[in-house]
Amino acid sequence: MASAVADKEPKIGSNDDLNSISVEPNGEITHEPENGRVEQPKRNVKFTVTPVSDSEHEATAKNDNRPEQPVSFDVLDGDNNDTYNLQNSITALLSSKFRDIQKKLKQYGLESPRFRKRLVSKWESLNYDICENVLYLKERDKHKSKKWVTLRWIHRWVIMFMIGIGTALLAAAIHAIVENLAHLKFELVKDYLDHCAKEGCLYQPVLIWMAINVVVTMAGAALVTFLQPKAAGSGIPFIKSYLNGVKIPGLLTFRAFIAKTVGVVCSILGGLACGKEGPMAHSGSIIAAGLGRGRINFCAGKSCSLYDSFRNDHEIRDFVAGGAASGVSSAFGAPIGGTLFSLEEAASFWNQDLTWRVFFASMIACFGTNFLISSINGHPTKLSAPGLVRFNVFKYDLNFDLIEIPVFIFMAVVGGLLGALFVVLNYKLTVFRQKYLNKNWIKVVEAGVVSVVSAAIAFGLLVGINDCTTEHPSDHHAVTSKLYCKGEGEHNSLSTLFLTTPEGCLKALLHDPYGFHGPVSLVAFVCIFFFMGVWTYGLSVSSGVFIPALAIGAAWGRLVGIGVINMLPDSTHLQIDVGKYALIGAACQLGGILRTTISLTVILVECTGDISFGLPIMIVLMISKWVGDFITTGLYDMNVEVLGMPMLPFDCPPLTEDLRASDIMSQPLYTFKPKETVRNIYSMLQQETFCGFPVIEEDTSTTPRQIKLKGLILRHQLLLLLHKKIFCPPGQVQPRNVKLKDFRDFYPMYMKVEEIEISEEEMDYEMDLKPYYNPTPYTVESIFSLPRVFNLFRGLGLRHLIVVNDKNVPIGMVTRKDLAKFRVGSKRGIVKIEHLNIEDK
Amino acid sequence: MASAVADKEPKIGSNDDLNSISVEPNGEITHEPENGRVEQPKRNVKFTVTPVSDSEHEATAKNDNRPEQPVSFDVLDGDNNDTYNLQNSITALLSSKFRDIQKKLKQYGLESPRFRKRLVSKWESLNYDICENVLYLKERDKHKSKKWVTLRWIHRWVIMFMIGIGTALLAAAIHAIVENLAHLKFELVKDYLDHCAKEGCLYQPVLIWMAINVVVTMAGAALVTFLQPKAAGSGIPFIKSYLNGVKIPGLLTFRAFIAKTVGVVCSILGGLACGKEGPMAHSGSIIAAGLGRGRINFCAGKSCSLYDSFRNDHEIRDFVAGGAASGVSSAFGAPIGGTLFSLEEAASFWNQDLTWRVFFASMIACFGTNFLISSINGHPTKLSAPGLVRFNVFKYDLNFDLIEIPVFIFMAVVGGLLGALFVVLNYKLTVFRQKYLNKNWIKVVEAGVVSVVSAAIAFGLLVGINDCTTEHPSDHHAVTSKLYCKGEGEHNSLSTLFLTTPEGCLKALLHDPYGFHGPVSLVAFVCIFFFMGVWTYGLSVSSGVFIPALAIGAAWGRLVGIGVINMLPDSTHLQIDVGKYALIGAACQLGGILRTTISLTVILVECTGDISFGLPIMIVLMISKWVGDFITTGLYDMNVEVLGMPMLPFDCPPLTEDLRASDIMSQPLYTFKPKETVRNIYSMLQQETFCGFPVIEEDTSTTPRQIKLKGLILRHQLLLLLHKKIFCPPGQVQPRNVKLKDFRDFYPMYMKVEEIEISEEEMDYEMDLKPYYNPTPYTVESIFSLPRVFNLFRGLGLRHLIVVNDKNVPIGMVTRKDLAKFRVGSKRGIVKIEHLNIEDK
Repeated sequence: MASAVADKEPKIGSNDDLNSISVEPNGEITHEPENGRVEQPKRNVKFTVTPVSDSEHEATAKNDNRPEQPVSFDVLDGDNNDTYNLQNSITALLSSKFRDIQKKLKQYGLESPRFRKRLVSKWESLNYDICENVLYLKERDKHKSKKWVTLRWIHRWVIMFMIGIGTALLAAAIHAIVENLAHLKFELVKDYLDHCAKEGCLYQPVLIWMAINVVVTMAGAALVTFLQPKAAGSGIPFIKSYLNGVKIPGLLTFRAFIAKTVGVVCSILGGLACGKEGPMAHSGSIIAAGLGRGRINFCAGKSCSLYDSFRNDHEIRDFVAGGAASGVSSAFGAPIGGTLFSLEEAASFWNQDLTWRVFFASMIACFGTNFLISSINGHPTKLSAPGLVRFNVFKYDLNFDLIEIPVFIFMAVVGGLLGALFVVLNYKLTVFRQKYLNKNWIKVVEAGVVSVVSAAIAFGLLVGINDCTTEHPSDHHAVTSKLYCKGEGEHNSLSTLFLTTPEGCLKALLHDPYGFHGPVSLVAFVCIFFFMGVWTYGLSVSSGVFIPALAIGAAWGRLVGIGVINMLPDSTHLQIDVGKYALIGAACQLGGILRTTISLTVILVECTGDISFGLPIMIVLMISKWVGDFITTGLYDMNVEVLGMPMLPFDCPPLTEDLRASDIMSQPLYTFKPKETVRNIYSMLQQETFCGFPVIEEDTSTTPRQIKLKGLILRHQLLLLLHKKIFCPPGQVQPRNVKLKDFRDFYPMYMKVEEIEISEEEMDYEMDLKPYYNPTPYTVESIFSLPRVFNLFRGLGLRHLIVVNDKNVPIGMVTRKDLAKFRVGSKRGIVKIEHLNIEDK
Repeated sequence: MASAVADKEPKIGSNDDLNSISVEPNGEITHEPENGRVEQPKRNVKFTVTPVSDSEHEATAKNDNRPEQPVSFDVLDGDNNDTYNLQNSITALLSSKFRDIQKKLKQYGLESPRFRKRLVSKWESLNYDICENVLYLKERDKHKSKKWVTLRWIHRWVIMFMIGIGTALLAAAIHAIVENLAHLKFELVKDYLDHCAKEGCLYQPVLIWMAINVVVTMAGAALVTFLQPKAAGSGIPFIKSYLNGVKIPGLLTFRAFIAKTVGVVCSILGGLACGKEGPMAHSGSIIAAGLGRGRINFCAGKSCSLYDSFRNDHEIRDFVAGGAASGVSSAFGAPIGGTLFSLEEAASFWNQDLTWRVFFASMIACFGTNFLISSINGHPTKLSAPGLVRFNVFKYDLNFDLIEIPVFIFMAVVGGLLGALFVVLNYKLTVFRQKYLNKNWIKVVEAGVVSVVSAAIAFGLLVGINDCTTEHPSDHHAVTSKLYCKGEGEHNSLSTLFLTTPEGCLKALLHDPYGFHGPVSLVAFVCIFFFMGVWTYGLSVSSGVFIPALAIGAAWGRLVGIGVINMLPDSTHLQIDVGKYALIGAACQLGGILRTTISLTVILVECTGDISFGLPIMIVLMISKWVGDFITTGLYDMNVEVLGMPMLPFDCPPLTEDLRASDIMSQPLYTFKPKETVRNIYSMLQQETFCGFPVIEEDTSTTPRQIKLKGLILRHQLLLLLHKKIFCPPGQVQPRNVKLKDFRDFYPMYMKVEEIEISEEEMDYEMDLKPYYNPTPYTVESIFSLPRVFNLFRGLGLRHLIVVNDKNVPIGMVTRKDLAKFRVGSKRGIVKIEHLNIEDK
């Protein structure tokens, strides 16, 4: 079906969009209908609804069998003449300035804004609701004892423990491999550089350096691109979406694990501006999903299965929450931050017991990582390395004075602006990549190009700036090159930044003594690293954005620190504070780029290891978030938008109370009878892509005939029943040789309907659905308002919500995409509601 | 009605309970029906259900009009012959030993376990659901613009800001008043003591000391007892219940604020073993509720009203979450911990925007407190006091070695056991108080007695032990008395513990040098403070349990530290670590007593100010929680149970899938027609205590007559409509002079039906309910299982859930108490489900 509509899909960024979108002088993006057709009555639209274009409409209609007549949303009335008080404020002034710049940018622009204003129909919901059918009740009767409940409880804790241990082992292994290999590589490069600086054969080490980088990087990129493309990037947008309830096939597989873990080692060894912290969250989640399912699927379709009792979306998602938390916890040594990270997305399902389990897993992961890395460092009982990256080795206590707060606030504003710039540039690049660099081999080559350019620029700066210093770096293991520095004990200060992993670079910027890095080197470093960071994020390699963001911020924070210290008289005693400014700068930059909430704050505070310094960190994170949000969304949100994921926000968008369930539901509804012929079922599954079908019963004895909702049956249940041939000629007794275990074994790799072979004779058999459908699906009446439907859907983690009329007859279905298509944004301080398209892709 | 059934209420603890409960050899508390009547079929009951007694049944039936026939729960089948694997484990051995002890205790026992196995019917639910009736839609149409949404958003943030500032001001004020007055008092006592020790007139200072204590304490107790009894204790159990969704009249009033804040100053000055941290959470909540409502009600029924747009349970509860967080944050300097504290109870309503607001408020509170207290201390720009109590002034870095973990685990087990003992003793005392000390004047006298005894014991120990030391206390402002110490520079070491507030005492135990406190003093201190702590908590005074719990733990932790240091050879360099053990001991003791979750962990870690030491704190908190949970519930949970609050847990109890909505709903259902006579409404409100009535319409045109659910109308809506006389003779047009604002102004002080005067003529008028009822109440079908009903109710924060049959005709109502009466407990490692009584009280 996707291919059938592919030619109708509007070309992104092309000017012949059926519905072009323009920015009007009042700053609102409005919709200009072409061909003289007005699809939506404009009188009542106060907020701007980006309507569904014609071609979209057809695609959608074909996909979800919506009737062709335009669905008339009586969306919201209002008057455009409303003058806002805020219009005359600084806000408005700034935003008009910004608009001008944006307009100019747009003329060179690569894309239309529509690219972010759509949902992709392939993303489905996880199924969090328990199907209490006859099978389930039978199965449960067997295990219905306090003992069983207790054992199940213990089992969950044991798996969480194993998740923590597994994540810790992985973190320690990656850390040891990356650090040792990178150190070797940089030692080699450095010796060669020092040697050749004297001999004048500098092109040799540079070529070797580039060669190593390009080979390793392209290996990593190839691994990701060909084995499992979902392992690209940090994986955090995917994990957040998954925890929010979006089903992402292939995300939590063994292939993704290999691509992610081996890939991240390659990326860092290949000299890309990326960290290994983000991918840890994804890797931890995969470990959790694997342990929860009790099964590993190897490449050749072989699998190794241990136990099956937790094989449903509900349990697996709980484990994945633990895994993501463990990953973050072992990466940053932040058990509380990790817990919050995974719970803030899955929060509609927060409960105390789950929270404890998640916390337990992340504590084990943190503790295990600490122990293992300490052991590798040779002192296993002195626990000194709670995570892969820590900021807490300041040689003095972090303190701050109230008069420093304004400086911090200034830095937060800068961080927010730079962060927004990062996101905007990366967005343009992402769109460019999707348009032009969408072939697998091009992706691999691009990664190679980036690694070559990284090495070339680094070398260029080393030689070009040649900033010599005699001070010792804070880290004794740091690789320093003399290069052209002639003096006794002198070495090139930039070499400690470039001849190390991005993590080492961050540590150097935070902890190196005051005079180590000169302003010129720092400015050059910020510019280069910023653009390399933008370019690297989104490559088809396994890479995290935390560390580069922190390193960029630390560098310009250090610059600010040097500035402040130089401006004040008698400031030699303040020189020790330069690391503090670097830390604040790092926080500002990260906050500006990612904009993530409480969990990020806690992670940074835990990384810093000093609570009393938490306050300024919290303040700058909040301000940089606000400044950034004023311009654009955060990086992860941008990723999610570009992917067209139907993420459900925490609250229903405001001003949507006038929409009724009947306005938003998908229609028409295809239903089954409790006894249905195999032919009907088979052809329905072939023709429709729906994942759930209401089961209705007609009472023919009364007039008018009464239709009664009996339950809801899911596509994958029907597929298994067809596959197991649970049907019989009419009048005979249906075989009952299917158990709950079969459904669980099936999870989550459901077959396609085409793979099931049914003979022509069997087509006329009947299937009794009664033991299998969910007899108590949640329903809403058609007059329910959108907020009430939304709360029900989100609060209960549903996948299907049946809309009934006032006689309890099902008339439609609400799914995740029907709710997610209304998105609220607050652009430049004004709330804005958009109606997204749903695209096949 | 309450008085009508009062004589039928079974006397607690008396032996003539209709249903006596005995502990059988297999450890399960079972129910012995008397009078030869078996109300419940026992065949199927596997877990122990404490059934509703006869008298209870009557009371309940009268209250919720349940028909007299025993409701036959087909609760759960199973077999009692099941032998558990766990039965033969150490668990079982320990638990049988414990049972023997418990049996013996029970012979002297004061109460039957039934006391904790009930819900009190007076507690109602908050109404979190929005009533989208015609009035609401009309009101909203007026404000339906992006501007309004934005302004409302800003308004919420501003109120949160004010909450933070208000809490900070309060915290700083209480801190300054308490610390200065207490210092004055103790200086006075000390001078007198030192003087009289030489002169031999020691009875004089002791009498003065006692006199001050008893007067101040009794003043505080009288304030709480007579002004607002809900201000007693720390208030945290109440706040937790409120955030969980229980409506608690009087909790968030101006009277409670006065009683709480002035009361806590009196309690501490009166020398009780209590802290000012717990009450801060309650005070912060009251500030938040007051600011949210925009109205203060003074004593004489006068009120000062500012704005009304946030006057509904939903908004107020969000603000209270912020207030509670601010209170905790300013008390402990723990903004993250405070945020978690208030969100973990209200978590079914967690959303990112609310989280940010709560976090913002608690950050402001923390920052404000820090600034104000620093200003009071004379250096406003050096922010040095983020909260009222902090542990972070250790003179060295907190570090730990892996080999210390076993010692910490041992301490955690001790803490868990001591904590459980604390809870058990306090529970016995609470029951005793409810039985015998329930008159107001007795309560005040008891507080006086406690304060006298506290002073007497303190003096006895000072003189009796006379432990002299020459070391200086860590705090330069500490009051030290020489008493009988003769040597040059010597002083009584216990005097630093008793001549200070409990907070000062905690600080001394954490930070005083190694040799300062001898083992004998510490043992005496632990014993005395433990029993004074048990006695004090639950008095009718405003008092917190955090600080005494921490102080007890710090004292025995210090003892353990001294023991460990003495056992190791060459340990003088370890002497500095004694404070570390005190800190761990404090954490263990607090974890053992309170058992609160993630938030407590974060609060303690933030208080410590050192993240790397967070790991052992987390470990000991988890272990002490587990050990404590093995024996009894936590202190706050015990309070909640004794109060009979219908707290809803996070998950539905397991093994309840066989219960259907039709089994648990309240019946019969009283309904109204869309046009109802005033007489019907008035008499229904008089006779029934229900808070919500379904509105149904009968369609007489069809046969059989079809009944259709139209909506749900709330008691307080009907009361206002009657009060405003929104009715008319049949056929006329009903007055419409009631607005949403009237309902909001009404909130939350709803009148009683008896206060409304309706003339006999008006009784025959008709009221059209259509514009006022909620047209889209959530409903479930009667075949829904309990877990599904529970998830819906809890997930959406409902107050009423209408149960309909398969024809969509309402047949019953599920409210909070119907769900909360199934409680899960894990006693001694085995899951247990109880069916609680619902009592009038």
